[in-house]
Amino acid sequence: MDEIKFLDNLFPKLTADESVVIGPGDDCAAIEWSDSMLQLLAVDQVVANQHFTMETAPERVGRKLLARNLSDIAAMGGIPKYALATVAADKTFSQDYHSRVMDGILELAKAFNVHVIGGDVCGLPSGYNATLTIVGEVAKDLVVTRKAAQVGDFIFTTGVFGDTFLSEHHLDFDPRVKEGQWLATNKFTSAMMDVSDGILMDLGRLAKASGVDVELNPEQVLPRRLGLSLKEILTDGEDYELLFTVPTSKKEALESSWPFSIPLTCIGRVLNCGNGIIFNSEKENLTEKYETFSHF
Amino acid sequence: MDEIKFLDNLFPKLTADESVVIGPGDDCAAIEWSDSMLQLLAVDQVVANQHFTMETAPERVGRKLLARNLSDIAAMGGIPKYALATVAADKTFSQDYHSRVMDGILELAKAFNVHVIGGDVCGLPSGYNATLTIVGEVAKDLVVTRKAAQVGDFIFTTGVFGDTFLSEHHLDFDPRVKEGQWLATNKFTSAMMDVSDGILMDLGRLAKASGVDVELNPEQVLPRRLGLSLKEILTDGEDYELLFTVPTSKKEALESSWPFSIPLTCIGRVLNCGNGIIFNSEKENLTEKYETFSHF
Repeated sequence: MDEIKFLDNLFPKLTADESVVIGPGDDCAAIEWSDSMLQLLAVDQVVANQHFTMETAPERVGRKLLARNLSDIAAMGGIPKYALATVAADKTFSQDYHSRVMDGILELAKAFNVHVIGGDVCGLPSGYNATLTIVGEVAKDLVVTRKAAQVGDFIFTTGVFGDTFLSEHHLDFDPRVKEGQWLATNKFTSAMMDVSDGILMDLGRLAKASGVDVELNPEQVLPRRLGLSLKEILTDGEDYELLFTVPTSKKEALESSWPFSIPLTCIGRVLNCGNGIIFNSEKENLTEKYETFSHF
Repeated sequence: MDEIKFLDNLFPKLTADESVVIGPGDDCAAIEWSDSMLQLLAVDQVVANQHFTMETAPERVGRKLLARNLSDIAAMGGIPKYALATVAADKTFSQDYHSRVMDGILELAKAFNVHVIGGDVCGLPSGYNATLTIVGEVAKDLVVTRKAAQVGDFIFTTGVFGDTFLSEHHLDFDPRVKEGQWLATNKFTSAMMDVSDGILMDLGRLAKASGVDVELNPEQVLPRRLGLSLKEILTDGEDYELLFTVPTSKKEALESSWPFSIPLTCIGRVLNCGNGIIFNSEKENLTEKYETFSHF
């Protein structure tokens, strides 16, 4: 299945009413929750031999499943609250395996004060598929989408990129929930999302959603794990860092007040209104130069 | 995996705070929504060659997936509002197949005024697994759980039971949302759930959750599709009817005011405080007499 074609076909069919404040297509959907708050909802999944291997400890499978969803809440500046999980698995996955996956979910859930309130278990003829629905909240005046990057904004990332499989970052990453909340609370960001499919693909999505083109200068500024090619840094995926745009007037205040130990890096700038094209400083089209693919 | 053992092991590990009004173990979880309302959340799934076959039209697969979740909302007396869906499938399932599944979801969603606000698609090495998370609401003073059946209450069901596979009821059933809302709004029920694993297993769950034993008189009262044995009626599963208890003082008013064309049938009575044992009028233990199994 071509995910992009499938979603292009699907989205126009979806209905909404005024209580749906942010519909499908962002990191989370948002619905009316109270006078001042929105409820955030998202769902993500893991599949054996795709998102983890049979050598992966089951606790790390569960941890990754929840962490991917926490990263989506982080990208909206939100606070995670509740989760519902499903498992469909064949009989080679033992009850002990399933319990250990849940233990991995619950340990990370405890660290983020998330309560698992529901779920479902089910047989599958072959393989393993687990899903998790995350429920969070964010103040209406603080929520950050991927749609509002403005011409002239600077493009920033948190953290370090690339080599996420061999480094096992894809299993052990810390979802940037407190960083996302801090950025939202201090209103530093015009647009934000998390990087799950590589900077190049996800920056393209943010730029397209905002109706802008961008300039990316990865050679100069992108923090990377050692020994990686530029292509790997830009397209590896599973980084689960935050990617966000910052108005010119706020760049200095952001950089001087950043209170976290992880890197904060300016990787580019919003060029002009456009259709999501990513250029480098030589005006080469980077999306065309490097093959990208979705890690969904 | 033994679902019951898995859940018995899991539930004590789950955390909650005061905002979690109904935790795991009922048809839906419920969290604080506003001064007067609870939000209901549940998740259910379908697997190819288990909940449907490769001959099943994809629209009916999607319809069934949403309908199962609507049935859970109905069982709490709730109003469905939003849904998030996931699909994990191998490459033999075409984009057209996936689109038609979504069409099936969206057609039923429209009929119940449900908005699909999120989801995820993902590859699976072999097979097909789709999940749907339903979000609904119910007034705090109207919500019905499976925990409050009282000694002396009468046990009722909606609809007709058995033969759900060959009759294709398991694909085409109408979730009892308006019936559940009517029962809750008129406060006829002390406890309620939907019947997905057969009357015998689900009545046992309701009785155990309420801490009571019950008497079931299926020979006399159970409406059934033609030609079925008593065992089939009691254990077939996938009926998706409502099962509920009614205080003695309200039985007559319920029966005289029931406004729906589907049958309303008194199938037994709550005997005494107990551990969820189902007797017949000869005091035989029906749970021991008939083998039951979960259709999860």
